[in-house]
Amino acid sequence: MGLIAMEDLDEEEAEIEEVEIEVETKILVPPFNFAMVDEGIYRSGFPTEENFDFLETLNLRSVVYMCPEPYPEENLKFLKSHGIKLFQFGIDGSKDPLVKIPKDAITGALKILLDVRNQPVLIHCKRGKHRTGTLVGCFRKLRYWCLSSIFEEYHRHTAGKSRMSDQRFIETFDVSTVRDCVLGIMYRYHGVGRKSKRLVYESDSDN
Amino acid sequence: MGLIAMEDLDEEEAEIEEVEIEVETKILVPPFNFAMVDEGIYRSGFPTEENFDFLETLNLRSVVYMCPEPYPEENLKFLKSHGIKLFQFGIDGSKDPLVKIPKDAITGALKILLDVRNQPVLIHCKRGKHRTGTLVGCFRKLRYWCLSSIFEEYHRHTAGKSRMSDQRFIETFDVSTVRDCVLGIMYRYHGVGRKSKRLVYESDSDN
Repeated sequence: MGLIAMEDLDEEEAEIEEVEIEVETKILVPPFNFAMVDEGIYRSGFPTEENFDFLETLNLRSVVYMCPEPYPEENLKFLKSHGIKLFQFGIDGSKDPLVKIPKDAITGALKILLDVRNQPVLIHCKRGKHRTGTLVGCFRKLRYWCLSSIFEEYHRHTAGKSRMSDQRFIETFDVSTVRDCVLGIMYRYHGVGRKSKRLVYESDSDN
Repeated sequence: MGLIAMEDLDEEEAEIEEVEIEVETKILVPPFNFAMVDEGIYRSGFPTEENFDFLETLNLRSVVYMCPEPYPEENLKFLKSHGIKLFQFGIDGSKDPLVKIPKDAITGALKILLDVRNQPVLIHCKRGKHRTGTLVGCFRKLRYWCLSSIFEEYHRHTAGKSRMSDQRFIETFDVSTVRDCVLGIMYRYHGVGRKSKRLVYESDSDN
């Protein structure tokens, strides 16, 4: 009996060792142009299948997708199997400076990503440069960042392909309407920074 | 009596309005090259006095400073008045590829920033490019990021001034010693991602 117990122990130890080795060798591939914007808010280029293992580590609740094209089948499948909601705000990716970014799309996307019940959230477009950069720029404006810092961060993600039209959009974007309707709730219930309380769905708070 | 009560109310309303206006106009200036690395970990160039209002919003517990030069008096004063600990790991900022980055400094800094009791933590050097970039690169390696993603992030913060020597350091840096001594504790007590538990000082947990 003593011997059998020892064997059981050995088997258990062997299993633990195996798990450790598996963890050691698992290499994660974040999507192109990936970065953390703020607590619970991430940005990137278009995630592909090779990024799914990495995305799992973010425990996402939602994705804010900024392109008009339909979402690929394998990505939809990934979202569904992980209970991640998709919010689409289609903005045309044109380089033409006369094609204007629709304000409603940016305002709508901001309201989604500011709602803590949707966080952790990943914002992405195709390359994570212009549409995502413009949305993040407007988010920074809401958080009272000065324009020069907002533009510095915008440039960092465009890899030399910055667009004046995006920067003009951020500069002239009136954050007061978004602030009025969302920040009042955020400050009251959510707070600011790491000491903040968190809004949760009722089902979550039961856990 | 009714009239006086009305006046009181007006005064109170006027005060609330004043506070709102003050919040509206306060513009924050993040340090040059600022970004969020991970939950509770930030990176930047050297913060100056104009960045202090912004730094306050991060509720920092510590700063990891990667230059050998003494810390400026006004920065020390800011840290002291906010109860922020300073950890210095002096690495020479030389461009000479034969001047090697000391492994002990990177290992020591990693151990500090991985310890959740030091978070939120800000890592910075002078420009937030090479020394900070190398440290963040090693941190990503610990988190199982593939090298191409690590280098993409590194390049994003060097603004065209990437150094082969930094990238070679990250590539050859052996994370196993740091992983063995820190990650075991992290995974057991801290967990991974947003569902993680937090290690706190006993005094904090009493609150």
